[in-house]
Amino acid sequence: MAQKPGIPKGTRDFGPGELARRYYIIEVIREAFERFGFQPIETPSFENYDTLMGKYGDEGDRLIFKILNSGDFLSKVGADELAKGDANSLTPKISEKALRYDLTVPFARYVVMHQNELDFPFKRYQIQPVWRADRPQRGRFREFFQCDADVVGATGILQELEFVQLYDRVFDQLGLKGVTIKINHRKVLAGIAEVIGASDKLIDFTVALDKLDKIGAAGVEKEMLGKGLAPDAVEKVKPLLDTTMDAMGRFEKLEELLSDSEVGQEGLADLRSILEQTDALGLRASTLVPDVTLARGLNYYTGAIFEVAAPEGVEMGSIGGGGRYDDLTGIFGLKDLSGVGISFGLDRIYLVMEQLGLFPPSVDQQLDVFCINFGEAEAKAAFKLVLNLRSKGVRTDIYPNAAKVGKQFKYADKRGVPRVILIGDEELKAGNFTVREMKSGEQATFSMAQWEDFAAQLLR
Amino acid sequence: MAQKPGIPKGTRDFGPGELARRYYIIEVIREAFERFGFQPIETPSFENYDTLMGKYGDEGDRLIFKILNSGDFLSKVGADELAKGDANSLTPKISEKALRYDLTVPFARYVVMHQNELDFPFKRYQIQPVWRADRPQRGRFREFFQCDADVVGATGILQELEFVQLYDRVFDQLGLKGVTIKINHRKVLAGIAEVIGASDKLIDFTVALDKLDKIGAAGVEKEMLGKGLAPDAVEKVKPLLDTTMDAMGRFEKLEELLSDSEVGQEGLADLRSILEQTDALGLRASTLVPDVTLARGLNYYTGAIFEVAAPEGVEMGSIGGGGRYDDLTGIFGLKDLSGVGISFGLDRIYLVMEQLGLFPPSVDQQLDVFCINFGEAEAKAAFKLVLNLRSKGVRTDIYPNAAKVGKQFKYADKRGVPRVILIGDEELKAGNFTVREMKSGEQATFSMAQWEDFAAQLLR
Repeated sequence: MAQKPGIPKGTRDFGPGELARRYYIIEVIREAFERFGFQPIETPSFENYDTLMGKYGDEGDRLIFKILNSGDFLSKVGADELAKGDANSLTPKISEKALRYDLTVPFARYVVMHQNELDFPFKRYQIQPVWRADRPQRGRFREFFQCDADVVGATGILQELEFVQLYDRVFDQLGLKGVTIKINHRKVLAGIAEVIGASDKLIDFTVALDKLDKIGAAGVEKEMLGKGLAPDAVEKVKPLLDTTMDAMGRFEKLEELLSDSEVGQEGLADLRSILEQTDALGLRASTLVPDVTLARGLNYYTGAIFEVAAPEGVEMGSIGGGGRYDDLTGIFGLKDLSGVGISFGLDRIYLVMEQLGLFPPSVDQQLDVFCINFGEAEAKAAFKLVLNLRSKGVRTDIYPNAAKVGKQFKYADKRGVPRVILIGDEELKAGNFTVREMKSGEQATFSMAQWEDFAAQLLR
Repeated sequence: MAQKPGIPKGTRDFGPGELARRYYIIEVIREAFERFGFQPIETPSFENYDTLMGKYGDEGDRLIFKILNSGDFLSKVGADELAKGDANSLTPKISEKALRYDLTVPFARYVVMHQNELDFPFKRYQIQPVWRADRPQRGRFREFFQCDADVVGATGILQELEFVQLYDRVFDQLGLKGVTIKINHRKVLAGIAEVIGASDKLIDFTVALDKLDKIGAAGVEKEMLGKGLAPDAVEKVKPLLDTTMDAMGRFEKLEELLSDSEVGQEGLADLRSILEQTDALGLRASTLVPDVTLARGLNYYTGAIFEVAAPEGVEMGSIGGGGRYDDLTGIFGLKDLSGVGISFGLDRIYLVMEQLGLFPPSVDQQLDVFCINFGEAEAKAAFKLVLNLRSKGVRTDIYPNAAKVGKQFKYADKRGVPRVILIGDEELKAGNFTVREMKSGEQATFSMAQWEDFAAQLLR
């Protein structure tokens, strides 16, 4: 009996319509990356087991897909070992490769492996799928694309300024107006922790702060107290949690609070520079806003931290994020290489664009002309014309046989083509072709010799 | 201690230079696919274990990468089963997913799963990586891209004609002249086997025939006799093995030989039509040649068979191939859907293009302008200019800090940029920028207000 086909949960088939829209977004991002001087790299889909394991915490290790060794994968496993039946200890013995979990660790591995061929600062972009054995949910998949741009080997805030402009460039090009680029700084968070006497609880403190949007000021205070922060420490943080105040108002409160913290002042100086210079340069589609509650990937970032929110009114998590890190490549033995990078959330940007109706109609049109097939002799002339049109860049197709004309028209309509070419007996004799607009039904007849004019007209 | 990084054998990192060239080839292929009315699909990197297993023969099954189930993958394996230590029987119990081995089986699975959404004839293209646990060799990798175009649900030789033109279009666009597109037909092979009385040995017969290039006529005859073909049968085949005769000469011999075979005549009629009509339409970069020894994937193809050879003088296996198959989707329960498809060998086309020096210089230039950084005030003005140029589509970069000018020039040179922009103290005061051509050293000064003219000049 034939198999009933399916695909693994959390994965997707992409059909032509959806892909045309995905390719459109990817091309806008890729073009922006290249205009900004980023160069592409691609790394293998699977890395050595040891390259990935231990880089994403225990939860990450569990979510990494491992590849079973080929051939007799049990040959090196002892009978005792096998009898224990312990999947955890068996895994590294029967699997020496794993699917990449993100693009960051492979990038770090790449930089270290190729350090002698690279010219620093090295600006790379990478657009490839990653895989995670996460529980699938709406908008969360086991295979999804990441679109990352990073610079390694460059310090100074020019890179941060550049990434803000890069985000803006992409969203402007996509027609996605009203995006908010939130910015914070690891040193600002460290400064607050220092000032309130909770430097030893930096993580607990920032994790709680990060929840302000979700649980409100009272919830954050409660969580901080629950994590053992002193009541007077929490009291000092209160002004930062006042959501009735706008972002710049809270930023001023922050400046007061951090007046005595050296590390805090360093962070604030960076933030001020980035805000002021961005203000002078201007943004087209987005707004840059300081957000003291932003703490994504704190263990990882050491300087500026970015997160991008969709326009107001669209229910969607962040559509991008990034920041500066000082020791990306240290795990592979290359110390003191500072980097900063950002990422675009392709799937979410897609959903936002769809919700707001931002895809241009041209993206959905995949065929410019369709040629009706009236029989062998007619089709020969038609096929010659089809090939000519294609040679000029007109996306053209022809029905493979002389099926009923009604059926062919229905097919052309389903393919979404705006016009068809008719070469029937009459046209064949006269050396003509007729073009009919699908919507209006308007017709025009051209002589075969005029095909180049017709092509030029379509491509205008 | 830090890990010494490496990548799994048979896989590759692609750096910016190589990728720019790969993207160039892929874009030419993709554009040709779209002009010819093919629509993109993408399928998940891994499929269900059962979808892939048993579709590629025993050897194929062994070469498929299996993914270890997540979590406690031994929980459903009995102690007895485990104690046996039999990797083969254990595999399906601890692995329910596998990496795709080609694009054909996933495509068949896709068509069957989505048959109610698709409009037939369905023309799809697919450019994605595939994985095989093959022994790595020069030019053979464990991860590589396939670029496939197929039509399902269309009979008649218009599709075959179209695929010949599609090959020619791509090779012409790539500047790859002198390609040979070899064509054969399953029914011709069946006809020969019938005529010589070896229908029951069709596979052995064609496998031997396929080796003519490698082992010569004497070798082929010897192999056929060794496989049990009758001496008089082998005698009848001899005229087809005469390599001193050109392709058309051998094709005539074939017509004589098959004069009494009905199936053979059917195949010949198709071949003649395809050859004659292609002759009438013309080819730009390639030649279509009948090749009776061509037998690739015989179990699979049911009509025309294609294989593409690189220009003479280039040592390279086939750079493309394909054919017609009548029951691709039958394995998943959808009967009688005829299909025909071709594939481009990306890695080999890359090597041929490199050997013949066919990549246009523009492909290797990834940056149009580089801006030297003379200090904070100058960099502010420069960065504004950089952003303006980028907004017009000029790929522009700037050094992140005011390093020594010599160092910055050296970096610009390594990035392969043809010109640099200099905004020093003088230019800053005068509101100017100076452009220096890297090769000639020629300089020209523009006023900042002229930046749009400068950008337009670069993009011409």
